[in-house]
Amino acid sequence: MSDVKQKSSNVVWHDTQVTTAMRETLNGHRGAVLWFTGLSGAGKSTLANAVEERLHQMKARTFVIDGDNVRHGLCADLSFSDDDRVENIRRVGEVAGLFVQAGVLTLTAFISPFRADREKVRAIVGENFIEVHCNTALEICESRDVKGLYRKARAGEIADFTGISSPYEAPENPEICVDTGSDNLSACVDQVIAYLQAHGVITK
Amino acid sequence: MSDVKQKSSNVVWHDTQVTTAMRETLNGHRGAVLWFTGLSGAGKSTLANAVEERLHQMKARTFVIDGDNVRHGLCADLSFSDDDRVENIRRVGEVAGLFVQAGVLTLTAFISPFRADREKVRAIVGENFIEVHCNTALEICESRDVKGLYRKARAGEIADFTGISSPYEAPENPEICVDTGSDNLSACVDQVIAYLQAHGVITK
Repeated sequence: MSDVKQKSSNVVWHDTQVTTAMRETLNGHRGAVLWFTGLSGAGKSTLANAVEERLHQMKARTFVIDGDNVRHGLCADLSFSDDDRVENIRRVGEVAGLFVQAGVLTLTAFISPFRADREKVRAIVGENFIEVHCNTALEICESRDVKGLYRKARAGEIADFTGISSPYEAPENPEICVDTGSDNLSACVDQVIAYLQAHGVITK
Repeated sequence: MSDVKQKSSNVVWHDTQVTTAMRETLNGHRGAVLWFTGLSGAGKSTLANAVEERLHQMKARTFVIDGDNVRHGLCADLSFSDDDRVENIRRVGEVAGLFVQAGVLTLTAFISPFRADREKVRAIVGENFIEVHCNTALEICESRDVKGLYRKARAGEIADFTGISSPYEAPENPEICVDTGSDNLSACVDQVIAYLQAHGVITK
């Protein structure tokens, strides 16, 4: 620390700026959002976490935003009403945009069933938005029913359940479509990594 | 990509997890929030940006969250009413908490005049919350009046202006108190960096 204190209120302080490009250079990769969308049970979270693990092994800076870590925090004030679901996805999109500015490879795992909501996020994030459709058929998701949610939805115990009593609008032109219903996990991870390499997001 | 597709819906997918500790090891420093608080014109943003620049030169992973990049995005739906100001700081605290999980040294620059709000953020972020009081006297901030806001507040054109018509509750035990009214910028940056080194947040 400086021993000389300038006791003046007129000291001029100049603004500096660390830019996204500078952070990306330090990281050795671009910031981007991998937006995993698909039905409940399609494998979004599992795939997102597995892709993150692979990227971390490649020394990329990564973060997964999923329902659990926002529904209990940033979006704890939101219900599951239509309006609040829209707001939930909007906030996640805004946060993902901040992470991209920070140069982080950001992975999100939300059903995000409506095209309009996903397109809003694309508008927020810009060219660094990569939509990943976890394309597992409803029958397979329902037969897995890991959390028992489909059974409850069929029994009428959960209202507006995507695929049962509320629509899932599949992406029309996703950057990546993963056959999460049939492929093994490792093959799905390979497919996502290959996309990132082919598009210069990561260079290794 | 694998050429062999397992056409089975019973493929078992195991969850993996990249932890904050793993990200911190990769980064070579801990994730933490430097929460700069102080009056309008105290030098919060300028100091936060200058600290970020120094940390970036040291190859730390950094990000600054400031009013501009959340008021136009994540918090664009909020007004400047009392309730919405509280919500603004809450959301920023939650986002800062996510950045800490991502292993990032996160810097925020908000007046955040109320102790209760800052303590809420401390509760969200936990032990990695570092409160930095930019302790510039009101008279100095008002004499600088870089944005002309004090003049407008004195003229009654801005309601509830911190320091003029709304209180600023100074931190009682901030981790760092910076004499942003008298010290030169470089000395203030030195003081923050020295704190981070002394407390093992950064190791260089």
